[in-house]
This record gives sequence, C-alpha cells and structure tokens, in this order.
Amino acid sequence: MKVVEVLHMNGGNGDISYAKNSLVQQKVILMTKPITEQAITDLYCSLFPQNLCIADLGCSSGANTFIVVSELVKIVEKERKKHGFQSPEFHFNFNDLPGNDFNTIFQSLDIFQQDLRKQIGEEFGPCFFSGVPGSFYTRLFPSNSLHFVHSSYSLMWLSQVPDAVENNKGNIYMASTSPPSVIKAYYKQYEKDFSNFLKYRSEELVKGGKMVLTFLGRESEDPTSKECCYIWELLAMALNELVVEGLIEEEKVDSFNIPQYTPSPADVKYIVEKEGSFTINQLEATRIHWNACNENYKNGGYDVSRCMRAVAEPLLVSQFGEELMDLVFHKYEEIISDCMSKEQTEFINVTVSLTKRN
Amino acid sequence: MKVVEVLHMNGGNGDISYAKNSLVQQKVILMTKPITEQAITDLYCSLFPQNLCIADLGCSSGANTFIVVSELVKIVEKERKKHGFQSPEFHFNFNDLPGNDFNTIFQSLDIFQQDLRKQIGEEFGPCFFSGVPGSFYTRLFPSNSLHFVHSSYSLMWLSQVPDAVENNKGNIYMASTSPPSVIKAYYKQYEKDFSNFLKYRSEELVKGGKMVLTFLGRESEDPTSKECCYIWELLAMALNELVVEGLIEEEKVDSFNIPQYTPSPADVKYIVEKEGSFTINQLEATRIHWNACNENYKNGGYDVSRCMRAVAEPLLVSQFGEELMDLVFHKYEEIISDCMSKEQTEFINVTVSLTKRN
Repeated sequence: MKVVEVLHMNGGNGDISYAKNSLVQQKVILMTKPITEQAITDLYCSLFPQNLCIADLGCSSGANTFIVVSELVKIVEKERKKHGFQSPEFHFNFNDLPGNDFNTIFQSLDIFQQDLRKQIGEEFGPCFFSGVPGSFYTRLFPSNSLHFVHSSYSLMWLSQVPDAVENNKGNIYMASTSPPSVIKAYYKQYEKDFSNFLKYRSEELVKGGKMVLTFLGRESEDPTSKECCYIWELLAMALNELVVEGLIEEEKVDSFNIPQYTPSPADVKYIVEKEGSFTINQLEATRIHWNACNENYKNGGYDVSRCMRAVAEPLLVSQFGEELMDLVFHKYEEIISDCMSKEQTEFINVTVSLTKRN
Repeated sequence: MKVVEVLHMNGGNGDISYAKNSLVQQKVILMTKPITEQAITDLYCSLFPQNLCIADLGCSSGANTFIVVSELVKIVEKERKKHGFQSPEFHFNFNDLPGNDFNTIFQSLDIFQQDLRKQIGEEFGPCFFSGVPGSFYTRLFPSNSLHFVHSSYSLMWLSQVPDAVENNKGNIYMASTSPPSVIKAYYKQYEKDFSNFLKYRSEELVKGGKMVLTFLGRESEDPTSKECCYIWELLAMALNELVVEGLIEEEKVDSFNIPQYTPSPADVKYIVEKEGSFTINQLEATRIHWNACNENYKNGGYDVSRCMRAVAEPLLVSQFGEELMDLVFHKYEEIISDCMSKEQTEFINVTVSLTKRN
C-alpha cells in the first residue's frame, strides 16, 4: 500500500463523508484555539507582513478546513486595527494528499467568504486561496515563502507503514501483544517522518515563522497504552470477527497495519530538539471524549464509528475491498457502543507551538 | 446564469471529457510555442529569478494542462545551463473557475513529474504545484508575486453574458442577423473584462514580468464574420431544429447567449494600449482547421462536435437541462459534418506577448 496514493478522508458531502463526520476534529481545533491565537498574534506583531502567507497542512475537506482560516483572519484583523495598520493580503494554502477532495473545498470558497464578510465586514484582505496537493513529508512550498503553518489531527499519519512489521499477528496497529520489534519500527518511522517534516518546513518558513501542530497523541510514555491504541484494537476485533465468519482471510488482517503513530509530549519535544530548526513555545496535552459532540452520549457507537469510517475507509478498502465496508463498520459500531457503555473513552491531543530559529 | 458558477470544461477522463476531446487546443499550444519560448527565455535572462513563479490561467484539466509546464521547464533548463546557473525553484499555479476538475489534475501530477524526469533527467527544480480556483477577471494572486503568465484558449470567455442582449432572437451568439445593440454589448463586455484582466495581472506580476495570451479570435474586423461566429451559428441551428420538433421552447433559445468574444489583433492592441500597464512584444494571428487533429478528415463532424461538447456542455445544461444533450450534440455533429464536407472551416488564434511596464 502506498500511503500517499491511498490515504485520504472520505470526500464530498454525503452521509459517510469526512465533511459530515468530523465534529470531534472540529472541537479539537476549537479547544486548541488559544495556542493558535497566541502564535499568530506573536507572529503578526513581530513581522507585520504585508502579504501573510499561511498553510494548513492536512486540511481535508469540509467545514473544518474553513474554521482555521476564519479564526486566523479574525485574530490578525483585531491586531492590525489595534496597531492602526492596513489589512494584509492573506494567502491561504490548503494542503492535503492528492486523493483529498479539493474540488469540494474550491466550490465552497465563495460561500465561505460571503459568510466571513457578514461576520467581520468588508474591510479585510484581499484573501487568496490555493490548493497544494502532496505529502507534507516532502517539500511543498518555495523557500522562505510561508509565515505560519497550522496542522490539526494530520501529523500522526506516517508517510508509510513502517518496514518490518510483518509479525504483528492479529493486530492492525501497535498493541500490547505486538512484539518489541513492531513498536520500535513504528517509533523509528515516526522519528524519521517528523524530523523530515521539521526540516522541510524550516526551509519553507521565513525567519521567525511559526507553526502550531496538533497530533492525535497520548499522555502515557507507553506507545501501546490503551489511551492511544484502543480505537484501533476495536477495529481489529471487528475485522477478526469477519475472519471467524470466513468473510476475510486471516492473512489479510495480519498483514494490514495502520500507518499512524500517536506521540506523547515527550516524543514531540525530543524530536524537535534533536532536529534543531525550531524552538518550542508551548507544548500541552488535552483530552476529548470519543463522543464529545453528542451531548447526551446517545448513539455514541454510531457517531464514533462513522467518524472513524470517514477517516480510515480508503485505507481499509485498499486492503479488504469496498463491498465489505458496511459490514465492517456495522460490527465496529457495535463493539464501540459496548465499550462506551462500560468505560470512559477519550482521545488525547498533543499540541505544540514552534518558532523557526534565526 | 452566473458564468463563474456554470462555465467549466467537462471534467474527468471519460468519453465526453475535455481531457479526451481537446486535441485542437493542444495543437494551438504547440503552434504558439515559439512565442512562449521567446517570452520565457527573455524573462529568465532578464531577471534570473531563484524562485520562478508561473501561472497558467484557464488551465482546464487533462494533458494540455501539463504540456505548458513541461515546455516551460525545458526552455528554462536549457537557458540556466547555458549560463551555468543552478536550476531555479519552479512554482506552477494552475488556475481555472471553481467548477474545473482540479482533483484530476492533482492526481496526475506524480506521473507527469516522473515522465518529465525521464525526459530531462533529475537535476531540475524542485517544482511546486498549486491549484488556484477563481475567475481571472478578479485578483487571484498576491501582489508582485508572479513572473510569468500563460493562458491559451480561455480569455475569449467573458465574465458574464453581456447586459442588454435580450433581443438576439434566434441566435445564441453575435450573428449577422443580430441587432447592432447586441454587437455593441458584446464588445463593451469584452473591453471591460480584458481591461480588468490586464489591471489585475499587472498588480500580481513583478516588474518586467511577462504574459503570453492566446485567444480564440478572428482576423476580420467584423465581429459577426463567419470565421468567428460560424461554429456557434451551427449550434444555434441544432437548437432551433429541436424548437421545431417541440423539444425546446423557442424562448429558451432566444434568451440563451454564449458568454464569449473572439477578438481581432486590432481589438487586443487597442485595449492593451488603452489600459496602459503592458507593452506589446509580439501580436499575431494563426489559423487551424476545425478538425486539425484528424489527419484524414474522416469523421470530422464527430470530433469537432465532441470538442465543442467538452467545452460548452455545462453552459447548455444550465439552460436546456441534461437530458437533451445527447440529442443536441448528435444534431450538431450532423450539421458540422455537412459544412465541413462543403467548405474550408478554420479557427483563428490571436496570440499576444506582453511585458509589464516598469
């Protein structure tokens, strides 16, 4: 499986689209807003750029793509008015892998801008928008061209399934039953990918440029702890049930591994310092219930399994075929519902705010 | 009809896609290559930019999108080697209206780059690619950010159907039977649109930046001359036949007008000089047979009607509905075939090479 070709959130605006099933991700963006606000304010007030060039990496498609843009414009507008400056030209770059549904983003831009003008008036910008397809583990932008990088719930995705994880039998991700070699391979892939990410962004950012990155992560130092692996363990259970029913070959589950690594704050700190291009301004972990957007927690399994389907379906289709997906996610929903009725289930978010060293 | 929302070439890679039915447009790009070559060579050798920022306006989706990129890279590479310089960073911006199929472009980028590396080796670039959705009759790019603008077979499209063309009975475009007020309205819209285009691009281009623009145009000074109006007159004939058959209401044809103006070299020269931001380096008209890509001219009507379908179908669907399209284009094919068997049928291309004044 080539991750760059396969991985993307479900496109469009339909029932199983990411656009319709990403409220948890939206809530995370809003939770981490104070850190983003601090960073963009500091950036604007140190450089006062006339053309403010911003990239959202792993933007997906849907309302979440625009929430970040809208927040950033509002914060900069507040600051520039405070200083009596003209509004800068805003240049927003939406990045995701080539399989992302950029057409849907582009066709929503007009309504988004109308809404924004209703909220904050006509006197900002102009705003320019670009779509930039490609992996953020490669160079994406010209040298010294970006002022600010934002990325939320994207950087836990690895550039590839780690090498040498063939012996992860019965699992589809790191698990307490995975051999140490598998855990090590996952960590090594993450270290390599995140280091490359930092290096490439440091080439693209101007001096003093900033980044705010939020990972799906963990607080525990154990990479197989339940807080980060449970959601995939439950998916493995659903797949293994289909193996028992004879609908999926056992070998297909054994050879399937999710290209993800959910780092702890210590992991992030270690790699940023080792790579050396950035200083850390803030680093924190927060928690959000799996079903945070459903106030009464009814139908929790349904919402969570749909959210996971919007995120992981293309990966699963590439291994198991399209025709089994309804069944897989129906089983997954039952298993998740059962868990959620018995225990506290939370995602951990790790957010880091960085400044490029001079 | 809002042109910005409706106009786009047929997407995807299927039978009626622009990608599969745009060989004439491709041939035009190749015919005008010497002018593009001269312009990009002059540009590169006057500025030697380390980051060469290029925009293709009205890029559509398909092979034609990439031909221009590939040619420009080859020419710059030849020049920079001659001067012993390092390859610049190439930044290509693909622009078209938001309804364009950007997803298909983005998913073809990887193969395009592999092919290009096979042709010219590994030692160029890096190349960065962005999609920029929006009308080129608005600002699209940050100030002073572009070095070179290319546009082929796009700028004859107007930003809207001209006002006050209600009395263009029986026609769908300017025709010899159109009242003078209609001809005037079309010209006024073109003058306004092309002037705005020049103004906005002059804001976006760096000093000394260049543009090569090719219009579907005419040589005659008469805007209703056959050489530019015939292809739409034949489409009007097809639609009017369906009126006679009771399948389309007469009023629907009368109120439908193609938002296009095909300028003469004199039109282009007049507006460029009046607007004042650019000097003209070259201005020329060339001719291409309607069926230039079909060597033996067999099945000519079929090829030409398919090409026109790929270009005009979304406009026609917005007025007449999707279900009639097969019928409309079948009639159109018959009418075109008949014409082509009797007379010489050619498109006129008007190409202008411009430099931004200092």
